[in-house]
Amino acid sequence: MQEIQLDEKILSKIDFKANEEKDITITGMIQNLRVLGWGAFLILRTPEYTLQTIIDKNNINIPPDELLVESTVSITGTVKPATIKDKALNPRDYEIHVKSIEIIAASALKELPADTTKKELNVHLDTKFDLRPLTLRHPRERAIFRIASTIAREFGDALGRLGFTQIYSPKLVASGAEGGANIFKMDYFGREAYLAQSPQFYKQMMVGVYGRVFEVAPVFRAEKHDTSRHLNEYISLDLEMGYIKDFYDLIKVESLVLKSIFEKLESNCAHEIELLDIEIPKIDKIVTIKFKEVHEIIFNEFKKDYRAEKDLAPEEEKLICQYSKENWGSELLFVTHYPSEKRPFYTLDDPDDPGYTCSFDLLFRNVEITTGGQRLHVYDDYVKKMTSLGMNVNNFESYLQTFKFGMPPHGGLGLGLERLTSQICGLANVKEASLFPRDINRLEP
Amino acid sequence: MQEIQLDEKILSKIDFKANEEKDITITGMIQNLRVLGWGAFLILRTPEYTLQTIIDKNNINIPPDELLVESTVSITGTVKPATIKDKALNPRDYEIHVKSIEIIAASALKELPADTTKKELNVHLDTKFDLRPLTLRHPRERAIFRIASTIAREFGDALGRLGFTQIYSPKLVASGAEGGANIFKMDYFGREAYLAQSPQFYKQMMVGVYGRVFEVAPVFRAEKHDTSRHLNEYISLDLEMGYIKDFYDLIKVESLVLKSIFEKLESNCAHEIELLDIEIPKIDKIVTIKFKEVHEIIFNEFKKDYRAEKDLAPEEEKLICQYSKENWGSELLFVTHYPSEKRPFYTLDDPDDPGYTCSFDLLFRNVEITTGGQRLHVYDDYVKKMTSLGMNVNNFESYLQTFKFGMPPHGGLGLGLERLTSQICGLANVKEASLFPRDINRLEP
Repeated sequence: MQEIQLDEKILSKIDFKANEEKDITITGMIQNLRVLGWGAFLILRTPEYTLQTIIDKNNINIPPDELLVESTVSITGTVKPATIKDKALNPRDYEIHVKSIEIIAASALKELPADTTKKELNVHLDTKFDLRPLTLRHPRERAIFRIASTIAREFGDALGRLGFTQIYSPKLVASGAEGGANIFKMDYFGREAYLAQSPQFYKQMMVGVYGRVFEVAPVFRAEKHDTSRHLNEYISLDLEMGYIKDFYDLIKVESLVLKSIFEKLESNCAHEIELLDIEIPKIDKIVTIKFKEVHEIIFNEFKKDYRAEKDLAPEEEKLICQYSKENWGSELLFVTHYPSEKRPFYTLDDPDDPGYTCSFDLLFRNVEITTGGQRLHVYDDYVKKMTSLGMNVNNFESYLQTFKFGMPPHGGLGLGLERLTSQICGLANVKEASLFPRDINRLEP
Repeated sequence: MQEIQLDEKILSKIDFKANEEKDITITGMIQNLRVLGWGAFLILRTPEYTLQTIIDKNNINIPPDELLVESTVSITGTVKPATIKDKALNPRDYEIHVKSIEIIAASALKELPADTTKKELNVHLDTKFDLRPLTLRHPRERAIFRIASTIAREFGDALGRLGFTQIYSPKLVASGAEGGANIFKMDYFGREAYLAQSPQFYKQMMVGVYGRVFEVAPVFRAEKHDTSRHLNEYISLDLEMGYIKDFYDLIKVESLVLKSIFEKLESNCAHEIELLDIEIPKIDKIVTIKFKEVHEIIFNEFKKDYRAEKDLAPEEEKLICQYSKENWGSELLFVTHYPSEKRPFYTLDDPDDPGYTCSFDLLFRNVEITTGGQRLHVYDDYVKKMTSLGMNVNNFESYLQTFKFGMPPHGGLGLGLERLTSQICGLANVKEASLFPRDINRLEP
């Protein structure tokens, strides 16, 4: 038996200011190495820093040209005010004048298959994904996923402050929530199971329990098309909320949550925002527009006639986003009242406008990032709606019992983490906002 | 187009003290209703409160005996200091003297299939799970999953403060991390895919990117046995940490994180802790013991001879936990240096004791809740180890490339959320700590 003292100081951050002109030892990986006549600039990547260190070749135990990028090294040196203030550095105000280097683990390769030391990672998308364990080490990639991580975290923190409880619902399910062919099937001990397309049924069940719930978890869509807007596995930021007056309550809550997320990004990811040279949107009001109105505006303003269509074309989403930004001063646009036939069976129809629903999408910088709406909450209404759609009510018994037990008026929404990250970071393809993207051709790494 | 103002006050909590002797309107579901001669006690469940309300049958618009438990109602009444202070109530210091009730949505059932109004939910485990949308509304069930939710959240918050970055790794994978037959297979557009047994490979890859990472996500184990300790889908709290000196760094970090979790439970879940009548452990030191020593103690103290066994028997885990609590004053016991043959290929062997590994389990109240250890970090060591185990290195190419690019010494651990919750809440079966448990017989709800 061995007793160890709890060490509250383990992993504490370095106070560079307090250590100015003092020697410290810091361990990390070599992000970049520029060997020059007099010595070298070595950028050290640690869990918390991207630090400039300067090696004088006449005062060092290892010749700088024997070091390999991506090796793990422990560096001892003096903290000095920075002479170079590159925006890739963090912190930017201090640098280390190296006295000695210890190689902890050398990279096995003299030349890496992708150059992560250049400002831009100029590789084909497939190469980028094939070499993910390396390419993710590039500063821009690291910045993208720090932003994604911050978004997902603040989604939960903001909802926690609003009285929502986080839930964990199963991903192995007996029936699909969204219907259609886009569902992965598998064998589950001799019976057919599916991978959850969304936590829809479960978050509704949990509204009866906690009133307001959210989940951050993977969802799976067996979509066969390979586009820049789709992933076969992605992280869905979901919320479901009871006791709503109408679906505008959901729009209000989502706007507040996004406002919190954007503010958190500004405060916690200033380094990443500057590195990626992106602009975080501001939310100071909410703009909504009816689905039918969008068709009208696109027809009147852009002379494109989609008025017979039951959904918005990607071109319309793009044009109305531009129109909203220019005319209404908002990069976020809630489109409401989509046609019933384009919404799932659990969506509440608009009593004032048959054929349309109490639902909405959120468009952001040309792309739909959220689908949401008010749900049915009365058992008989489910039976009526499902029967009218030719669905077999018996297959959904374990879900539908929820509404027999009593349920408040409620609604919710799902926000795709990768889509939101992608639009914030200005990425051309949503797959670039997934650490290890899954598409019809890709299951590795 | 419609413009809506951002409403920062939406969903703000009720200040009962400030509203004393004033009238408020509050919406929720009827958790319990006791109709007596003079009127009724009605307990209202809202997203934030479990509130005592008192109805005088002579001064109310709806006769109390016409109300149904689990209906959604809006209650208007006067806030008064509480006369009854039941520990199931939250807050406990105030009650509402009802003036009027509006039924928002009635329960469809006069009699519910499980009685959620009693102090204990006395139903068979299968019934409890079959009726999850109802049984989870019981105060004890709600308390259990508030605790689970708080554990998972604080796991991330504590690690965030220690410089860990949250990641989201894919659950659809091309090869299993833990090997063996316990893996779910599926068809992925014509090729075979698996459901991730753990995020092992991905969290290691991400150590090269961020140095310290964590993940909170479902994992899948196709275990055919149905026990009180296993789930086929569970939430794994995972961390992986670079630049470690040895695996004791992991033990220290896990101890700090658990200490934060326990403190957060004490502060944020005081109501739930009291309701469940449970005790949250204290951590003031770390106790570790070698695997071989456990066998010796069990033999010497309890006269049970497991010394030839390469793993700990459940009986041994139970006995050593009791022994630790009594003799070493710790409910948490880290057992270290498990035999190599019982640990996965990526585990570092102990250079000082061949046949044993730089690994550990954490035992807590008779059950193993964590497996962790230091990993190999040199490419050639992987090839050597995998070859000696008869594994085909080519099948793991996209993972193994990570170690060619250079990797720091690192290790990590996985903590089962349901097991930890179950042990904290004193549940007899780990399935009771899963909202919607999955086992060989259960895929619904």
